[in-house]
Amino acid sequence: MNSPLILSVDAMGGDAAPEIVVEGAAGFLKGRRRPVRLLLHGDAERIEPLLDKHPEVRAASEVRHTAEEVDMTTRPSEAVRRARGSSMWNAVHAVKDGEAHVAVSAGNTGALMAISKVILRMKPGVHRPAIAASWPGPKGFTTVLDVGANVDCTPAQLVEFAVLGEAFHRALRDVKRPTVGLLNVGQEELKGDQVVRDADTLLREAELDMDYQGFVEGDDISLGTTDVVVTDGFTGNVALKTAEGTARLLGGWMKEAFTGSVLAKAGAFLLSLSSLRQLRERMDPGNVNGGVFLGLNGVVVKSHGGATGPSFATALRIALEMADSDFLTEIEQNLSRLSATEERMAEKKETA
Amino acid sequence: MNSPLILSVDAMGGDAAPEIVVEGAAGFLKGRRRPVRLLLHGDAERIEPLLDKHPEVRAASEVRHTAEEVDMTTRPSEAVRRARGSSMWNAVHAVKDGEAHVAVSAGNTGALMAISKVILRMKPGVHRPAIAASWPGPKGFTTVLDVGANVDCTPAQLVEFAVLGEAFHRALRDVKRPTVGLLNVGQEELKGDQVVRDADTLLREAELDMDYQGFVEGDDISLGTTDVVVTDGFTGNVALKTAEGTARLLGGWMKEAFTGSVLAKAGAFLLSLSSLRQLRERMDPGNVNGGVFLGLNGVVVKSHGGATGPSFATALRIALEMADSDFLTEIEQNLSRLSATEERMAEKKETA
Repeated sequence: MNSPLILSVDAMGGDAAPEIVVEGAAGFLKGRRRPVRLLLHGDAERIEPLLDKHPEVRAASEVRHTAEEVDMTTRPSEAVRRARGSSMWNAVHAVKDGEAHVAVSAGNTGALMAISKVILRMKPGVHRPAIAASWPGPKGFTTVLDVGANVDCTPAQLVEFAVLGEAFHRALRDVKRPTVGLLNVGQEELKGDQVVRDADTLLREAELDMDYQGFVEGDDISLGTTDVVVTDGFTGNVALKTAEGTARLLGGWMKEAFTGSVLAKAGAFLLSLSSLRQLRERMDPGNVNGGVFLGLNGVVVKSHGGATGPSFATALRIALEMADSDFLTEIEQNLSRLSATEERMAEKKETA
Repeated sequence: MNSPLILSVDAMGGDAAPEIVVEGAAGFLKGRRRPVRLLLHGDAERIEPLLDKHPEVRAASEVRHTAEEVDMTTRPSEAVRRARGSSMWNAVHAVKDGEAHVAVSAGNTGALMAISKVILRMKPGVHRPAIAASWPGPKGFTTVLDVGANVDCTPAQLVEFAVLGEAFHRALRDVKRPTVGLLNVGQEELKGDQVVRDADTLLREAELDMDYQGFVEGDDISLGTTDVVVTDGFTGNVALKTAEGTARLLGGWMKEAFTGSVLAKAGAFLLSLSSLRQLRERMDPGNVNGGVFLGLNGVVVKSHGGATGPSFATALRIALEMADSDFLTEIEQNLSRLSATEERMAEKKETA
């Protein structure tokens, strides 16, 4: 592919935008060989001075001015009415218009999801989109979804998430037949609420041609026991934030340990010549920043609202990987399998 | 207090019992000055040879023989009928009989909870007991509950957990007025399911004389934003296991980083002379092993089923702290406040 991949960026989304967006873009572009173009949607008066400091970003970007922005407190229901013409709205619309391959925003999650649903629409067969996160593990990344879009989920929705997540993982991680697990608690008989148990039954009986491995627990996410872990948005969001908090705590402890005494500093210096930097990078939750909205006619990547430059760069990297993958085709194949399954299940019910 | 504190131990509970139990006891007793006695319930033929290797454990222990044990696959409903006379049953019964201050088991959680409820009974005003875990943070420990006893919870039950957890934290952590948060997800309007929102309303209106601070998120657990974090058993269990998995993954990475090259090894050697060991200990999830059952007429500590000697020692340490605290008095004071509140709320409803 010689034509550049184009990322449509909400330059005003996030607590410290547009600064972190331009900084992130600079980090993202550094050393990149393949051509990438950025559409920066937002207030030109605030973006242009930042581009003066980062000529390499200016060279790869086109600023699309708008004075409107969605603030972090806008409710999703208001967003759709009030956000037309905002930087977030325009960033997503560029994907619908075929001007960009993927949209990225660090703005308000609820508003971004509402806007994305209105502009891009859900794929046929999808009832609610999900947000997928990529979690580091010993063998690579685990895909976890939903991590926040849907607080209450039906069993059928969890099955849809499995279908979406499996296609996402295959496209992005180049795994031919990803394994899928359903998040649950471990105790016998206490196992799961009814929704999780029903979803398990559905996944077993659905003949989805998917490598469904049954229940997994919280620690399986980091262990990478299955490639994809499916859960509702409440549990997924809590698990994701808990993991981030733990990583941050341990990172802080490591820093303390390495600055405690002269000996510790000398040790840390020797380590820094080798693998300490890599370790720090691996332990930085910012390096897994970027939830991907699945189930829409187009790809939208959500960065943390509190993103820094480096973590926004990670979100841009994820967006590029998505743009460069055959994810939308994979999703379509999976969804056609799902609808065939749903018909079969409905027939079974009728004849029963 | 000069009379020894007495811990009643299910010596047969856990994947690698009774070995890890005796090893754990040895680690626990090492260097301890205050007198502690252990009642070891289980198969004397298997326990005695282990005590030969650990005379210091034998000196502090009394073996209470029983050939019966509860295996890890026993369902809670079966446990109560089939577990009478088992090591787990006897360990809990010794607390009821006033022979011990607290019971400890690494056996099947569901069975242990069912047995504990039958033998010890719930405190007046408590509808369902909860399991509390202690989570390390920058300023000390955060109490999180429920972490697995109750998969589905009503708003009123979450309020009870807040009451139990607050008393637990005050007694164990010596904090006069612990702050309490309710676990939720962050997005506006997506915020929480109805149960969490209703529990929030109850906690605000209940006039419980509790420092309730509203919603917290997953990362607040490690940050120690509030002393106590309240959630249902499904979410709490997933969060706990996710945090453990993350800590284990990062610990593994640290080990890799320290053994990668000669330089790294030299660095690690210098660090090991200072603070590395302490760091490793802090990062070891085994060091937070031990969930405490709250809401019963007596204290039961649940160790992980997969506990090793050192992590079982941690569970024993937690049990000793509980035995040595005025936790049961604190709980009673809190519960009387709760029932006064419930009466007040009921009156409000009637007059409304």
